[in-house]
Amino acid sequence: MKATRTVQKILSYYEADNPGVKGALCRMLMHGKLGGTGKMIILPVDQGFEHGPARSFAPNPAAYDPHYHFQLAIDAGLNAYAAPLGMLEAGADTFAGQIPMILKANSANSLIPAEAPKDQAITASVDDALRLGCSAIGFTIYPGSSAGLEMFEEISEMREEAAAKGLATVIWSYPRGEALSKDGETAIDIAAYAAQIAALLGAHIIKIKLSTDHLELPEAKKVYEEQKIDISTQAARVRHCMQAAFNGRRIVVFSGGAKKGASSVYDDARAIRDGGGNGSIIGRNTFQRPREEALKMLSDLIDIYKGKA
Amino acid sequence: MKATRTVQKILSYYEADNPGVKGALCRMLMHGKLGGTGKMIILPVDQGFEHGPARSFAPNPAAYDPHYHFQLAIDAGLNAYAAPLGMLEAGADTFAGQIPMILKANSANSLIPAEAPKDQAITASVDDALRLGCSAIGFTIYPGSSAGLEMFEEISEMREEAAAKGLATVIWSYPRGEALSKDGETAIDIAAYAAQIAALLGAHIIKIKLSTDHLELPEAKKVYEEQKIDISTQAARVRHCMQAAFNGRRIVVFSGGAKKGASSVYDDARAIRDGGGNGSIIGRNTFQRPREEALKMLSDLIDIYKGKA
Amino acid sequence: MKATRTVQKILSYYEADNPGVKGALCRMLMHGKLGGTGKMIILPVDQGFEHGPARSFAPNPAAYDPHYHFQLAIDAGLNAYAAPLGMLEAGADTFAGQIPMILKANSANSLIPAEAPKDQAITASVDDALRLGCSAIGFTIYPGSSAGLEMFEEISEMREEAAAKGLATVIWSYPRGEALSKDGETAIDIAAYAAQIAALLGAHIIKIKLSTDHLELPEAKKVYEEQKIDISTQAARVRHCMQAAFNGRRIVVFSGGAKKGASSVYDDARAIRDGGGNGSIIGRNTFQRPREEALKMLSDLIDIYKGKA
Amino acid sequence: MKATRTVQKILSYYEADNPGVKGALCRMLMHGKLGGTGKMIILPVDQGFEHGPARSFAPNPAAYDPHYHFQLAIDAGLNAYAAPLGMLEAGADTFAGQIPMILKANSANSLIPAEAPKDQAITASVDDALRLGCSAIGFTIYPGSSAGLEMFEEISEMREEAAAKGLATVIWSYPRGEALSKDGETAIDIAAYAAQIAALLGAHIIKIKLSTDHLELPEAKKVYEEQKIDISTQAARVRHCMQAAFNGRRIVVFSGGAKKGASSVYDDARAIRDGGGNGSIIGRNTFQRPREEALKMLSDLIDIYKGKA
Amino acid sequence: MKATRTVQKILSYYEADNPGVKGALCRMLMHGKLGGTGKMIILPVDQGFEHGPARSFAPNPAAYDPHYHFQLAIDAGLNAYAAPLGMLEAGADTFAGQIPMILKANSANSLIPAEAPKDQAITASVDDALRLGCSAIGFTIYPGSSAGLEMFEEISEMREEAAAKGLATVIWSYPRGEALSKDGETAIDIAAYAAQIAALLGAHIIKIKLSTDHLELPEAKKVYEEQKIDISTQAARVRHCMQAAFNGRRIVVFSGGAKKGASSVYDDARAIRDGGGNGSIIGRNTFQRPREEALKMLSDLIDIYKGKA
Repeated sequence: MKATRTVQKILSYYEADNPGVKGALCRMLMHGKLGGTGKMIILPVDQGFEHGPARSFAPNPAAYDPHYHFQLAIDAGLNAYAAPLGMLEAGADTFAGQIPMILKANSANSLIPAEAPKDQAITASVDDALRLGCSAIGFTIYPGSSAGLEMFEEISEMREEAAAKGLATVIWSYPRGEALSKDGETAIDIAAYAAQIAALLGAHIIKIKLSTDHLELPEAKKVYEEQKIDISTQAARVRHCMQAAFNGRRIVVFSGGAKKGASSVYDDARAIRDGGGNGSIIGRNTFQRPREEALKMLSDLIDIYKGKA
Repeated sequence: MKATRTVQKILSYYEADNPGVKGALCRMLMHGKLGGTGKMIILPVDQGFEHGPARSFAPNPAAYDPHYHFQLAIDAGLNAYAAPLGMLEAGADTFAGQIPMILKANSANSLIPAEAPKDQAITASVDDALRLGCSAIGFTIYPGSSAGLEMFEEISEMREEAAAKGLATVIWSYPRGEALSKDGETAIDIAAYAAQIAALLGAHIIKIKLSTDHLELPEAKKVYEEQKIDISTQAARVRHCMQAAFNGRRIVVFSGGAKKGASSVYDDARAIRDGGGNGSIIGRNTFQRPREEALKMLSDLIDIYKGKA
Repeated sequence: MKATRTVQKILSYYEADNPGVKGALCRMLMHGKLGGTGKMIILPVDQGFEHGPARSFAPNPAAYDPHYHFQLAIDAGLNAYAAPLGMLEAGADTFAGQIPMILKANSANSLIPAEAPKDQAITASVDDALRLGCSAIGFTIYPGSSAGLEMFEEISEMREEAAAKGLATVIWSYPRGEALSKDGETAIDIAAYAAQIAALLGAHIIKIKLSTDHLELPEAKKVYEEQKIDISTQAARVRHCMQAAFNGRRIVVFSGGAKKGASSVYDDARAIRDGGGNGSIIGRNTFQRPREEALKMLSDLIDIYKGKA
Repeated sequence: MKATRTVQKILSYYEADNPGVKGALCRMLMHGKLGGTGKMIILPVDQGFEHGPARSFAPNPAAYDPHYHFQLAIDAGLNAYAAPLGMLEAGADTFAGQIPMILKANSANSLIPAEAPKDQAITASVDDALRLGCSAIGFTIYPGSSAGLEMFEEISEMREEAAAKGLATVIWSYPRGEALSKDGETAIDIAAYAAQIAALLGAHIIKIKLSTDHLELPEAKKVYEEQKIDISTQAARVRHCMQAAFNGRRIVVFSGGAKKGASSVYDDARAIRDGGGNGSIIGRNTFQRPREEALKMLSDLIDIYKGKA
Repeated sequence: MKATRTVQKILSYYEADNPGVKGALCRMLMHGKLGGTGKMIILPVDQGFEHGPARSFAPNPAAYDPHYHFQLAIDAGLNAYAAPLGMLEAGADTFAGQIPMILKANSANSLIPAEAPKDQAITASVDDALRLGCSAIGFTIYPGSSAGLEMFEEISEMREEAAAKGLATVIWSYPRGEALSKDGETAIDIAAYAAQIAALLGAHIIKIKLSTDHLELPEAKKVYEEQKIDISTQAARVRHCMQAAFNGRRIVVFSGGAKKGASSVYDDARAIRDGGGNGSIIGRNTFQRPREEALKMLSDLIDIYKGKA
């Protein structure tokens, strides 16, 4: 399938990347109902690791089965499906070639002692991603944690290997840890900083959270106020984060967080769209709903990103 | 030996695995008196490491000899025998080809200072397993320990190497450590979580403990109650754990714990069977009994798994 | 382009280096408006990592775009442009061959918990530098930090690899950490020590801060007073630092620090020149000003280093 | 030299080992005055590391010279000589081929701060052992120390390499550290546990201390009392330790400890012999005595192991 | 140049070393005015790292230039010159082949926080030493530090690599750290222990400090008194240290410490000579004096070692 101009434009920003990586990005950008628009919706299913199976899947027990999620992402016409090793292995053959896959290569869980540094374990390799036919690896960093620098070193090495082997890298940039207050984790200065760090580390796709208008760091607060940076609306904040992502030269998708009402999900998507963001990475809000309801929501989101809603 | 349909069905779930790993799983599933049924009984003898020799073997001194356990597993018609390096080396030639072996690749002991993080030492390699003719490696993880993430990283690397070399991986998923209360170690939410983590890490066979109806994590408790998840009986709890093991796409065996009365052991097995579990991994309850008594018990257990008792 | 005598003289000091490294140094020394003079101005843009995007770029929003900095360095006729991986990747192709590049291979950030040891993460490799067409790698060390020795080991290994592959090494030697008071970080004894350590570690180009006449270490203070070392003026202090850089056998550039008035920037440059330093590495004072103003300032600095102002 | 039946029997227990390792064991078992009896006396000289030179050698100053110990082991007709790298290097050529050598590959010393975890440094490699013509490597583990698991991992890796290269492994299993009381270090339950751990780690020869009838671990004490395990005499305790060494399938030698009276040394040897142990590893009690006295004592010990005294 | 009998005798003690290492030792022993005598004077210049540039070189500013030290060592007719990477690189070509070089491969500095473990950073590699044409690597260990065991492991690995590549190893054995009092650092029992440890680690040349008659370790004190070890004079203490260096089978040179009066330096050398030591490693006492004065002193020292003064 020939890449659209929009997609070719985006690919042109990745000017230091080899054809393998560009091809992987292109596959994701051209796949599904948003294919060719430069917008993306990705289904991530790592909550089994993060929150455990019952909290993740009991509200919609069909979702205990790894095949469920492949099928959901395919049927909804999403751009890609992201999950840890075991989840992908359990369906990689059945669904081979039907949906671009992102191997989530590190993971945390709810059984980590509270006093331990915020950190994740590397639970899959670049070669695993190749072997399973993935288009990208995914990796979480926790800027703000005492384990943060080490996580940066891990993804730097892994990214280099992945890129050399023709895989794109998606960085989940989630500020967390001793350096931050709870409000700070979603503050706009922190969100923009998170996007910047991921970009500097060489992420091809950056995943951050939507932010509030809280400003966490006093030194930053001063600059936001002096320079009158507009952070008054979600769309404005998305726009600011896109600036921090090399002035839009990097793809940024925004995560949805815990399950909530559909209209709230739609509002988020409109803000992402209006702020120039590239799309959503949306897990619990889809797979915890009954399948038909989830398909409907995803269809609506696609319409929003297409500017039809 | 041609694999039965049941075994072929199980093997089909391991869709990302190479023929070497599937062959290793098949050898274990087709071996012994339960061969072909999809059920398994495994004899594990790592208590010499865990509790020391006298606590493990003095009740039945013949068991000090490593040959004893090979012979017991063979004579009882079990599916596999699991032990640390030294134990396997001491009989690997005499019993070569007579019983599938699982090399337990990490081990703890009772001399670790109480204040140290719950952890194990890696005491054997994948190449050791190949050299000894094993079908799988075994590895313990302690979700809940401050060493947990590091253990996940260790087994992730080892599993990748083992699978590339045609060996299956059995994960002993034993929640333990600072994050958990004593009751929490056997709580049903924790047991299901343990199964899920092992599955996500890519375990081919998951070993967890039977659980109680205690719920440890407040966030999880809420979901169990809201969703009215049935955890009222041992069989129901086994069934829930099988859900957590990719809806039954992964083999799960349950461990027996300390020596206890035969009827209690049989009750456990019936619950495992009725809940859809794949079988038992049973050590002290067999090798600490006199040989004839142990053979009788294992024969009874086989009957239970065959649905005859 | 034939190297000038001045540059040949400087290159002759690197007597243990292979032609690859000498060629890389020569490219930087011969490039731009100061080419051939033995003086250098380098544009470093790692503040996005260090201080976050808004504090770095909001005063001059065009600077959010990585291309801006390449163009600024090229248009101003500087010797080299230094930045982290992501920044270079975003423009490496567009500007290929137009400006010598230094890949800043480690980075800190403002989200590191205050109580953590002063340290940086390695976020790029020597092979990344080769792949992007860089002339050098850049690396920060923090003498005075409890992580200092480890940083020395990291750069020692990286320098060896870089030199073997024909890349020069620039060391940012920034004393910081438990061993130093705030004033001590810019004390003259510490600045000279920082230059000496970088030289001993094998730096080809040393970046230190301009210093004050404060003396931090009591043992050193005694010697400075006994030997009547002249530290009364900035030029004298630069001269002393050049002594510490193997009596001028190593290139030393001085950093400018936070944004300040133009005349203050010019005074600094005159002191560097008069003290025999090799030049400036100047970031915030240029890219945080409007482009025309920055170009004017850089032009003035070039004149100063040429002895015309 | 043809191996005796006794030695062939012992070698047959090492059923997973390659001919290289069996050959190395055979060389030690067939060497010296006890050659062929299945009994061994080994001279270990690592006290220079452990206690320093004066405490080790001043009582018999000839022993400062590394050649002294080679000659002593040869003249006394011992099975093997064990020492750290430097000691072996200083005589390896002069005495090449005259006595099987064991390279002690890790070492502690009396200058380690008291509050540091009980640990040793790896001070030689498997390749060093090959290069020097050794038959085995020696390695100390400290079960009970917070560094214990790490030591297990070190020897597991080193043992695998050594065995692949045809060298046997001798493990000095010395319980020590935070988990143990001073009395516990020589308690019989701990000694048996130490033997078991070394066997499980794959030691070909196990070195433990003679024990007392103290029982350290409450859980173990209960079993010893319930099962009425005989620990009343030193010979009985040796017998119990041989059980713990895979029911005698592994060679166990017992160490003598600090210098003491000859009759006490002889009593120890008789207990080892009567309990079915394989022999002594005896350092200070020989090299701290005048040479003639030491040769006499070793001759007497050989007679004891031959059943003549 | 044919090695003298004295040198051949010394080389014969290194009986496990390959011709490469013996050749390197021979080069140093046969070089300079003491060539062939079995005595050595080495110029070490690592004070720039240890104490900073001003404390090291301000008393004799010509010494800021790395060339100064090469020339001094050559003109004085010393056996070898030892320095960190940067210092050697700055003169390695100019002085190639004119003086045997020792690459000091690890280094400490005065900016390490006081509460950090006494440790050094590895700042050069064996391959660096080969590339620069060195005859040996130099490495400091701190027995008595909580980082001591790790330093032993570092030098053990590096020594093995160096020896395999034909380079000798010089160990600076400097007891220091939590286990020792200030007086203990130069106590005779500790000095002898330091020599022994370096010898056991496989040092070809051992560098220790001259000692006092203080006895630090109670267990050792008892033995020194019981055995009436003569430690009454510096010569006697040197003699005892030579015993601890495998009864003189290893070359031991003694360091001079801080700058002091010439007669005191000469007294030290006579004690070293009379006690059978191999010579001096003397830095600050030479390069901190005016060049002519330093040459005079070195000439006098050479006469002392030749027995002429």
